[in-house]
Amino acid sequence: MNSTYFYRRTIRKYAQRDIDNELLERLLTAGTRASTTGNMQVYSIIVTRDQEMKERLSPAHFNQPMVTEAPVVLTFCADFNRFNLWCRLRDAEPGYDNYLSFMTAAIDALLAAQTICNAAEEEGLGICYLGTATYNADSIIKVLELPRGVVPVATVTLGWPAQVPEQPDRLPLEAVVHYEKYHEFTPELIDSLYREKEARADSRQFIAENNKSTLAQVFTDVRYKKADNEHFSEKFLDVIRRQGFAV
Amino acid sequence: MNSTYFYRRTIRKYAQRDIDNELLERLLTAGTRASTTGNMQVYSIIVTRDQEMKERLSPAHFNQPMVTEAPVVLTFCADFNRFNLWCRLRDAEPGYDNYLSFMTAAIDALLAAQTICNAAEEEGLGICYLGTATYNADSIIKVLELPRGVVPVATVTLGWPAQVPEQPDRLPLEAVVHYEKYHEFTPELIDSLYREKEARADSRQFIAENNKSTLAQVFTDVRYKKADNEHFSEKFLDVIRRQGFAV
Repeated sequence: MNSTYFYRRTIRKYAQRDIDNELLERLLTAGTRASTTGNMQVYSIIVTRDQEMKERLSPAHFNQPMVTEAPVVLTFCADFNRFNLWCRLRDAEPGYDNYLSFMTAAIDALLAAQTICNAAEEEGLGICYLGTATYNADSIIKVLELPRGVVPVATVTLGWPAQVPEQPDRLPLEAVVHYEKYHEFTPELIDSLYREKEARADSRQFIAENNKSTLAQVFTDVRYKKADNEHFSEKFLDVIRRQGFAV
Repeated sequence: MNSTYFYRRTIRKYAQRDIDNELLERLLTAGTRASTTGNMQVYSIIVTRDQEMKERLSPAHFNQPMVTEAPVVLTFCADFNRFNLWCRLRDAEPGYDNYLSFMTAAIDALLAAQTICNAAEEEGLGICYLGTATYNADSIIKVLELPRGVVPVATVTLGWPAQVPEQPDRLPLEAVVHYEKYHEFTPELIDSLYREKEARADSRQFIAENNKSTLAQVFTDVRYKKADNEHFSEKFLDVIRRQGFAV
């Protein structure tokens, strides 16, 4: 396989250079070849290239500069709207107003998204996923005028890298891969799996900057706090329901 | 980008040839390089190679033959178990027992899954996603001994293709791609987007075999029925809750 998989890094700074239509269309086409449940293709991709639309999307992504600086912003949505319309026009009564159907559609959307990202990186483009798509799905729905049946699940910014940052660390493979059965983690195994990460200069800097005593506390008390997670959980569940999927 | 993206098809019949450990490990490593929220890596991959374990997993996948015939079965899970353990061992109180955290972890898992699939296909391997991972997550949890905090979201069978089936059709790009804003679908547009699909010989055969009058009815009345979707929605939501995420 091509080496891009192993040397990849998330790109947050883009050169002032557009992506031509032909390349973008090839990437989107590659995405539509990804696996989809029952070949229903229950997802959609909203392409944002217009600067004014990027500015309007920006607050939903907490004004992270990638949204206005990348030449292309892609919003991937779970989408039963088109499929339901087709059913109704063909004397068929769709039964997709439920949670399983939302998950099926979200999976379709994410597999297409990641295929486009892998293909884009192979072409030398850089990508960045924005988790804010699920945080502020309601605002995105308004800006992109998404109808009932459509829920954004991921946003990707896409462009030519202006700089190549250091590659982020990853835990040893044993932290995520289990053979045959799930191996529970003893405190000793956790220590050994996280040792290298915790010893990194940037981890220590993170702890110091945030006045914490462990790296884990930077996650629980600063970056991904319980109160925020609960707030955004309610908000996202509410969006899923309002878009027509019972939860 | 490599042509695999455009010529891919799902492979359901595998040659009796194993995948060597070195290749499998490279694929898994490629997967761990995929994007992950905040570099938390809140997912896990359970590798099934043992024939007895495949037999035990098989009923959860409605005994689809790929599970016992493929040399490797991969179960991708949303996983906050390891991360929560690490937090607790580091004087940090995790706040990830909510729906947003489940989605974050499911997205991590799916991006790793699709990266592994793309890399595998580039190596000439064939893959098949099994939607049954969400249908019967409860049985999979039992067989793979997944602890609280871990929810299967996708299963992939992996092996060398024994045959190359016809490539499945896809709707025209316009069915899934929207520029700047979501374009609503008129009945005329739906007709035009589905015309080729509906005219296919296999679509007509599907309709005839199932005694239906439209292709859409094959989906709503036979393949993905409302009652089944509702049943599996309740079951999956119940699993998510039982594994520690409030919904």
